[in-house]
Amino acid sequence: MAHLITIDSYTDNRGSLCAVEAQKDIPFEIKRVFYIYDVPTADIIRGGHRHKKTELAIICLKGTCSIYVQDEEKEEEFLLNNPNKILILNNQDWHTMSLFDKGTLLLVLASEYYDLDDYIDEPYAND
Amino acid sequence: MAHLITIDSYTDNRGSLCAVEAQKDIPFEIKRVFYIYDVPTADIIRGGHRHKKTELAIICLKGTCSIYVQDEEKEEEFLLNNPNKILILNNQDWHTMSLFDKGTLLLVLASEYYDLDDYIDEPYAND
Repeated sequence: MAHLITIDSYTDNRGSLCAVEAQKDIPFEIKRVFYIYDVPTADIIRGGHRHKKTELAIICLKGTCSIYVQDEEKEEEFLLNNPNKILILNNQDWHTMSLFDKGTLLLVLASEYYDLDDYIDEPYAND
Repeated sequence: MAHLITIDSYTDNRGSLCAVEAQKDIPFEIKRVFYIYDVPTADIIRGGHRHKKTELAIICLKGTCSIYVQDEEKEEEFLLNNPNKILILNNQDWHTMSLFDKGTLLLVLASEYYDLDDYIDEPYAND
């Protein structure tokens, strides 16, 4: 199931820096990096899929965003509002991203290259 | 020598998305990802090193930032102000980051894990 990790942030008089290492802080090799920005309004919902293979690490670099995650057993909602929080998603975690604050910037690290065939759009039919 | 590449950005009524793939869009495996934020004033200078091994891809996700790059033969200044521009640095490219706009967010993809011994602080002694 999805879970949050917290990484160190290094702050001094030159600003702040956070670093994430593949196969150390997060449990996979980083083959793809994508970022979502300029989401126009808070009622936009993005995502809405799970994967056959791809694992993800989601970081809200600026602003806030809510990540709804559902697997075969349960559902959970994670609020991302700090660049030192990372949400780790397994391939089977169906997820949506919503409630983007104005100016929110979402960074996603992925374990696989883009492959349309890796996407499963249907949510689980939980009761 | 350092060079800029431009990647596609996908924009629709849900916002914008850019994606970067390791060993495809950029010429190396991504072992480390770091991001710099909350740089307090435009006179701050960050970086100031080159590497024995590490290659970098620098992306300004928000705001603007100027990257000064120097190698044994020449020096160049790159203005980053769009999330679809990526500055590729070779290990031997000594660089600084400066002129951070308020709210600027800089994302850096690195080919190696953090290793203090990989850093060379001295600039080149060019005339």
